[in-house]
Amino acid sequence: MKIAILPGDGIGPEIIAQAVKVLNVLGESFELETAPVGGAGYAAHGHPLPDGTLALAKAADAVLFGAVGDYQYDTLERALRPEQAILGLRKQLGLFGNLRPAILYPELAGASTLKPEVVSGLDILIVRELTGDIYFGQPRGVRECPDGPFKGQREGYDTMRYAEGEIRRIAHVAFQAAQKRGKRLTSVDKANVLETFQFWKDIVTDVHKEYPDVALDHMYVDNAAMQLVRAPKKFDVIVTGNMFGDILSDCAAMLTGSIGMLPSASLDASNKGLYEPSHGSAPDIAGKGIANPLATILSAAMMLRYTFNKNEQADRIETAVKSVLAQGLRTADIFEPGTTKVGTEEMGNAVVKALA
Amino acid sequence: MKIAILPGDGIGPEIIAQAVKVLNVLGESFELETAPVGGAGYAAHGHPLPDGTLALAKAADAVLFGAVGDYQYDTLERALRPEQAILGLRKQLGLFGNLRPAILYPELAGASTLKPEVVSGLDILIVRELTGDIYFGQPRGVRECPDGPFKGQREGYDTMRYAEGEIRRIAHVAFQAAQKRGKRLTSVDKANVLETFQFWKDIVTDVHKEYPDVALDHMYVDNAAMQLVRAPKKFDVIVTGNMFGDILSDCAAMLTGSIGMLPSASLDASNKGLYEPSHGSAPDIAGKGIANPLATILSAAMMLRYTFNKNEQADRIETAVKSVLAQGLRTADIFEPGTTKVGTEEMGNAVVKALA
Ligand SMILES: [Mg+2]
Ligand SMILES: [Mg+2]
Repeated sequence: MKIAILPGDGIGPEIIAQAVKVLNVLGESFELETAPVGGAGYAAHGHPLPDGTLALAKAADAVLFGAVGDYQYDTLERALRPEQAILGLRKQLGLFGNLRPAILYPELAGASTLKPEVVSGLDILIVRELTGDIYFGQPRGVRECPDGPFKGQREGYDTMRYAEGEIRRIAHVAFQAAQKRGKRLTSVDKANVLETFQFWKDIVTDVHKEYPDVALDHMYVDNAAMQLVRAPKKFDVIVTGNMFGDILSDCAAMLTGSIGMLPSASLDASNKGLYEPSHGSAPDIAGKGIANPLATILSAAMMLRYTFNKNEQADRIETAVKSVLAQGLRTADIFEPGTTKVGTEEMGNAVVKALA
Repeated sequence: MKIAILPGDGIGPEIIAQAVKVLNVLGESFELETAPVGGAGYAAHGHPLPDGTLALAKAADAVLFGAVGDYQYDTLERALRPEQAILGLRKQLGLFGNLRPAILYPELAGASTLKPEVVSGLDILIVRELTGDIYFGQPRGVRECPDGPFKGQREGYDTMRYAEGEIRRIAHVAFQAAQKRGKRLTSVDKANVLETFQFWKDIVTDVHKEYPDVALDHMYVDNAAMQLVRAPKKFDVIVTGNMFGDILSDCAAMLTGSIGMLPSASLDASNKGLYEPSHGSAPDIAGKGIANPLATILSAAMMLRYTFNKNEQADRIETAVKSVLAQGLRTADIFEPGTTKVGTEEMGNAVVKALA
């Protein structure tokens, strides 16, 4: 079980250090190797994704990624900016399946704009296809409108496309994720008006035959947006395309009110994955020892569940996180009166202690 | 000021009757003419949108529409179903601008799943382009994938398209709506990844020159979905395309928790419009005298504001609705302990009285 550790910039190294501590006390034989990425990659080797870092990521079974980006790299040309590292890794590793949980621990329910009874204990997972759909489909551009009432005018256009194999592989990721959770999958489409998503629905329905233990239902995207607001806890796993997933996963994350708590994963067809917190590198608080390491620690838990199939170890970490929250420990970003404010390292140590 | 009154099916006639009462006491010289539509159109003339009804709607300055659909018509072939009436009217009248307010009166804030301080007093307007975008764009279908890693497989595809004139006319509707409200417009796009919406953004920015009194900003659709959950009251008017508008307007409506209260409008380029409640025909409670007429009454207020430019009369109606809610009057759908349950007719009469 080889894991590439890519801390990155800003608070990345601090929060990754806590997740590494957690991995090291699980009693598993992980092989961890660290390499610079993002601004740190540029500083060390002149590129945000240095060759050695990419080679390490390719050789590893999973990548644990901190965060990239810092003020000093903002003026670099686009191809050298820290953010290119994550795009490059996704492309080079073929990571097409984006897993974004929206979890709200009861202790943090106050941070949500929704009523506690609606969101407290929320635990849903959005599986977003990440490399296809209208965000990448060709042809696209601005042209002379070829037909209809606006013929001859300029028009902007894009192409939504999903091929059968592309839908099948993300459906497999989603059904397998559902098997590891509540065994319910909602496929979100707009089959009533889009050919692409009628096709999507047909293929997902076909893949379902291989997963008889998972209950599948289908929902239109506009209704899904409504249901996320009305009764988000009714969902278990949601699978959808790149664009709908972009919208719904951000909406679902915001339901929790504390994005600093949310992990994420990007998987390939054999469950190799890159795991990272949903939040950014927060250069304004870097080095102060106050960053919240929990999203990164929870990303490590996702790695155990989705790449290494170690559900029990993942559960252990998640239970430990719940336990430190129940003890009243809070980093500054989730602090409320009546709780105990702790730093990055104290929080990491508390999770380690709760694992014992 | 000629108004076509199309009550339709289910609770349509009951709720329309209350809105007509309200229109009749405003002291304006409206010419109202009624015709059957939907199932009632089929029953009377063998078609959900009879020729005479369409002619009346075309000759009128505005259409006040109740709701269509009833169990007995569910087995008709698709072209004869009640729902075809609204699609036919939109098409025949060239109604491309859909106005969907999301309003939450403080008295009804308990119905929302969001915390009262986040949504109480919400009053935003979503302007959705209704006849273009990927929901109608050609070409579309299922074909053999012509290129890329899935070449040769079957793929579903659709075309997103917006022509310059199509964007200009919806932008004008939105800027003019903003002028009648808080003078702030947010154009929602995904210009960072879609050519169509970079083009959309450019055209909306250009149209803005004609409306220097309106403040314009731009927001990505995924962020808009987040902000609707995080701080919906920060918006005034949102304008977007057909698909994004479909998702965001339903999400915004659900923020209020009481869809039975929401009016809507569909406008053409000269502000001729069709006005209708957002809710359906509710055949299960038809004829019982318990339906909520307020969304229909508020639709009549929208008609005064957007077609007839009578902002003060629209304000009068909306103030009257606020007043009956403040008096504690509630139809069954919005009833809570401690308020007074009234029927459809009593509610309509109370609004009329509050207007005096
Ligand atoms: Mg997004
Ligand atoms: Mg909709």
